[in-house]
Amino acid sequence: MRYPVEQIRSYCEEVWIKAGLSPEDAKVCVDVLLAADLRGQRTHGVTHMRDYCDRMVKGTSTPGADAEFDLTSPTSYVVDAKYGVGMVVAPKAMKKCMEQAKISGACFASIHNACHYGLGAYYPMMALEEDMIAFSFANAPALVAPFGGADPCLGTNPISVAIPAGKYPPLVMDIATSVVAKGRIHLAMKEGQSIPEGWALDKEGRPTTDPFEANVGVLMPFGAHKGYAMELIGSLLSFALSGADMDGKIPRPFECRDQFTNIGQFMGCIDISRFCPVEDFKARVDGMFAVLKACRPAAGSPGVMIPGEIEVRKTEEALRDGIDLSEAVLGEFREMSQTFGVPCPF
Amino acid sequence: MRYPVEQIRSYCEEVWIKAGLSPEDAKVCVDVLLAADLRGQRTHGVTHMRDYCDRMVKGTSTPGADAEFDLTSPTSYVVDAKYGVGMVVAPKAMKKCMEQAKISGACFASIHNACHYGLGAYYPMMALEEDMIAFSFANAPALVAPFGGADPCLGTNPISVAIPAGKYPPLVMDIATSVVAKGRIHLAMKEGQSIPEGWALDKEGRPTTDPFEANVGVLMPFGAHKGYAMELIGSLLSFALSGADMDGKIPRPFECRDQFTNIGQFMGCIDISRFCPVEDFKARVDGMFAVLKACRPAAGSPGVMIPGEIEVRKTEEALRDGIDLSEAVLGEFREMSQTFGVPCPF
Repeated sequence: MRYPVEQIRSYCEEVWIKAGLSPEDAKVCVDVLLAADLRGQRTHGVTHMRDYCDRMVKGTSTPGADAEFDLTSPTSYVVDAKYGVGMVVAPKAMKKCMEQAKISGACFASIHNACHYGLGAYYPMMALEEDMIAFSFANAPALVAPFGGADPCLGTNPISVAIPAGKYPPLVMDIATSVVAKGRIHLAMKEGQSIPEGWALDKEGRPTTDPFEANVGVLMPFGAHKGYAMELIGSLLSFALSGADMDGKIPRPFECRDQFTNIGQFMGCIDISRFCPVEDFKARVDGMFAVLKACRPAAGSPGVMIPGEIEVRKTEEALRDGIDLSEAVLGEFREMSQTFGVPCPF
Repeated sequence: MRYPVEQIRSYCEEVWIKAGLSPEDAKVCVDVLLAADLRGQRTHGVTHMRDYCDRMVKGTSTPGADAEFDLTSPTSYVVDAKYGVGMVVAPKAMKKCMEQAKISGACFASIHNACHYGLGAYYPMMALEEDMIAFSFANAPALVAPFGGADPCLGTNPISVAIPAGKYPPLVMDIATSVVAKGRIHLAMKEGQSIPEGWALDKEGRPTTDPFEANVGVLMPFGAHKGYAMELIGSLLSFALSGADMDGKIPRPFECRDQFTNIGQFMGCIDISRFCPVEDFKARVDGMFAVLKACRPAAGSPGVMIPGEIEVRKTEEALRDGIDLSEAVLGEFREMSQTFGVPCPF
């Protein structure tokens, strides 16, 4: 059933304040989660509200953590997140990068002791309002085999990029570097369906279309050796620059809620106006988007989409019709209402 | 037949000096081309020596072009390459970025009026000696369909990244953002072989395994919608920031040698030492590489490779055994010898 966005927003803010966040921190946290639900990326939305809160209760995520931001050069922040809530620390880091990029043209933040930060795209999208190109990388628990390998050595290490346009919505890329998320394997198991070849290997490292074999095996990177290279670069930028844990040492954030996750993140932004007038840049981006939208569709395709375009449509739809909350999520909301003494309006 | 690297080097330098380059410019140009041949990326090596020279003869590439480097902020160079030889201007741009990144922590160059710059990996690899993470993007003539489309709107827009390691060779990623280069289609035509599904569409936008249909159709991006997004990002960073031509307006540099190519390039580097001690970074990268090299091979795989590892082996081999020059390349060398009055030692 669908519920109005603002109703969900005020309920979640109230829960998060009771869980220990300041009203401002609660506001931005809920904004990050709702951005995922609005965009149709429900795997990163309020479905994990309960898990994030449970981490605060268990002490593996610290609501009032005093994250340290150390400006080590005109373009670099070294950030100790001190296990603060990911959706609290990451927006602060991007905000500081944006302010500093106004001064020096570009700025980057390398974050360690970080918790899961929800929708990766949220952070580069923040910089769109300042007419900057921005990105964010993060590492994650190892679930993916390197190209040519049979063991899970790498995370699904998401890559998020935002580039402003003029008349068109901005380009927003937000991809996991595995072909699919583990959740897609679980769904196929539940529905008794086979999975396409290329998604996963069985535990002997052989291609499989059986989701049960895949579940005890390993996910594959997108785009063969090319996607593997991107995934590895995302890992190195995230953990090797920051001193966070390697992918293989990170516990699964929503399953192992009593364990600390020393995740690494690397984000930053570049000020377009240092290279050319922003209006010229946007007109050129629009020019390319017009070419793409005029492209003949491939056989069986509805046509070419700009990365992020579908999510803009879904956002309009959700703002109009509300966000669909499943029975499972509603159950967790009722559980949180009990835990934190917040009346459940759903 | 294989020839010693130094023999090829001195011959090519002599030719390029006769074609109008200064001795220093000729030296770096040949170094870029030979780096490709040494690494086994022969599509970007001396096989195009004749084409680059022919552009200089025809006036569509200017050997003595006085490229302008405008430092517009502590982190940004705006570069007008003035159609100078790509392998002359691009190393200068990366060198300036490296010098400036020493001061401000990071620096980027946005280049327009650029010619084809050969091996993209050469430029980020330059920054390895300064313990920097570096990258380069370029756009290229439109040969690739956007995901879901049937027309060639995007170039094979290569992405090149270099990240230093300690005991291990560095990570060097150097990928075209199409599944394969057009040359692979031509090879299949020549050898009467079919091509795997997923490489190309026919001219009606349908998947094809017939290389002749593919040749009049369009290449596909690697990694479906994810690779398409990377390809598009590479294009926007290259042309929209710099004001170079859009992919669709760039003539094919080796085929249409009497036409100017206003290619765009975007490169830059980030100083690792601003984030953490370089030795710590390298030890962490080594740690990940050790995990990857210890990974069980997938069924039928020789094992996991670090991006760039195969190229290091090929370089060692070529330095020892020489570089293989085909009859076609030798023919072009003899042609150049006549044009420029340089005795051909091959």
